[in-house]
Amino acid sequence: MSEMNVAVVCGGVGAARLLRGFVGLVEPDRLTAIANVGDDMVLHGLHISPDLDTIVYTLAEAVSAERGWGLEGETWQAMEMIARYSETVSGGESADDSAWDLDWFSLGDRDLGTHLFRTQAILAGASLDQVTAQIAKTWGLDLRLLPVTNDRLRTMVTTPDHGEITFQEYFVGHQHSIPVSAVRFDGAESTTPAPGVVEALENADRIVVAPSNPAVSIDPVLAVPGIRELLERRREDVVVVSPIVGGKALKGPADRLLVELGREASVVGVAEWYADVVGTVVIDDVDADHAAAIEALGLKAVVTNTIMSSPDITRALAETTLS
Amino acid sequence: MSEMNVAVVCGGVGAARLLRGFVGLVEPDRLTAIANVGDDMVLHGLHISPDLDTIVYTLAEAVSAERGWGLEGETWQAMEMIARYSETVSGGESADDSAWDLDWFSLGDRDLGTHLFRTQAILAGASLDQVTAQIAKTWGLDLRLLPVTNDRLRTMVTTPDHGEITFQEYFVGHQHSIPVSAVRFDGAESTTPAPGVVEALENADRIVVAPSNPAVSIDPVLAVPGIRELLERRREDVVVVSPIVGGKALKGPADRLLVELGREASVVGVAEWYADVVGTVVIDDVDADHAAAIEALGLKAVVTNTIMSSPDITRALAETTLS
Repeated sequence: MSEMNVAVVCGGVGAARLLRGFVGLVEPDRLTAIANVGDDMVLHGLHISPDLDTIVYTLAEAVSAERGWGLEGETWQAMEMIARYSETVSGGESADDSAWDLDWFSLGDRDLGTHLFRTQAILAGASLDQVTAQIAKTWGLDLRLLPVTNDRLRTMVTTPDHGEITFQEYFVGHQHSIPVSAVRFDGAESTTPAPGVVEALENADRIVVAPSNPAVSIDPVLAVPGIRELLERRREDVVVVSPIVGGKALKGPADRLLVELGREASVVGVAEWYADVVGTVVIDDVDADHAAAIEALGLKAVVTNTIMSSPDITRALAETTLS
Repeated sequence: MSEMNVAVVCGGVGAARLLRGFVGLVEPDRLTAIANVGDDMVLHGLHISPDLDTIVYTLAEAVSAERGWGLEGETWQAMEMIARYSETVSGGESADDSAWDLDWFSLGDRDLGTHLFRTQAILAGASLDQVTAQIAKTWGLDLRLLPVTNDRLRTMVTTPDHGEITFQEYFVGHQHSIPVSAVRFDGAESTTPAPGVVEALENADRIVVAPSNPAVSIDPVLAVPGIRELLERRREDVVVVSPIVGGKALKGPADRLLVELGREASVVGVAEWYADVVGTVVIDDVDADHAAAIEALGLKAVVTNTIMSSPDITRALAETTLS
């Protein structure tokens, strides 16, 4: 087991998969995952933290293999009831139906238990990092999982068609199928890093930026005051695994977002995006031809298999980021 | 079908059962149920209205026959998850475990759908009476169901052993097994009746007080400014069905509460309790001997079968309250 201290800057699905490679490779008390909270929302009164939950459920091997998010063995009784109510309303005389439009975001019954626990703990005065620690402990996670901040930070997406909307309205409500002209992190300037975040990044022998969406999953982490500056200072120890392979995002809209926000959808675009905060880009074998262009930007390029299709490949990718 | 306008002042289970007798007897637009909201609470961030839901589920014939509350066909996936989290916490180093004690109040997955719908609608600006109307419509209820107020009103119970606690902590948390020395309706003085409540009571040819707990289910309704005075003024048209039969409450702690709060656990105690606001007490056949004592207090006594063990008996009881 490695004696290195490792901090991983995380979004959701891609980060959770990479973290699987670090668990068992790095000692649990030396491995810290620092997660995006820009996707968080209050829905039906519940505090929902999609990226934290995706990491927990994935590392607990409890994530639904079929859906790739949420829990296995899930049922949908609460949602079916909400859909019944919503149907009454949308067929009714309510003046403003949107206020009652409640079933656009799927919440499984088991998953609801997590949201209910988190919400009640926060209402009782617990901080997000405290309740996250309890959730991680319940699921037996072999690492330290921290939200980047305990404070309110919301990723807002400007769309030419619908104006500025929340990340979840964009990602789930519109299934990330509409153009984006800008991204903003509402409240970020007033946040402070959660306890342990700065220490984990300062003490890390290696800081890994997960193959998550740069614009809407990693940038909100960097938007917490002090984090971007810390990574700039430690740039030589920061490694990103490219979320773009062969010009495409493995999942989600990262490729389109890079283009819409003025970069190219390639590992070079990723390197340009992260040039100030990252010293090394890990790219897939299919992108080997781009290594020279990345090095011309002043970053190192490491070529390996980045498609985490098996535990062995995932482990090898994690090892590569530490070498 | 009766041409009378009828308003029923309601708690939960007992009221819901009596309402079954009025549905089909009184025209839907002439029948108004005015429900207690003193049991309402915010739990896990959700707005829960136990008496409103008991009335809806019972009249929709969807209430669990086995439990007498909540929905049939219910599952408990969310609660099982909350219990897992709570177990981690109570076995852990958390300083204040009570803040994390989350699984004392059972919430079924289907029932959660109702709470989620209500909470989101209220957060979106709907009032409790508006969302209640949508819920009642969804379940096809043949009456108008109103919360007595849209404002925050909380029944607080003073217990010598645990100080002042919320109604749900007393009723569910302690399973109403501890002594009570006082009851208070927090916030009542700042409430106003929900739209339609005063009109329904003013226009009613008969006001029926359901066989609910006088101290903790009906008194909070009367605590909304104006309601008690209205019933005092219309006392001759107000009929209560005694929740005490043969000196016992059919369900719950009404008999003990009457004694703890200075009355006797009998139909005479009920008559004394309601003497200012009720003109007639409907008592069970087993209490026929007490009719004279009730009339000596200046109230009429009507003797009939009040144990709603069949639809026919329930219907006959409802007819008696209107005669």
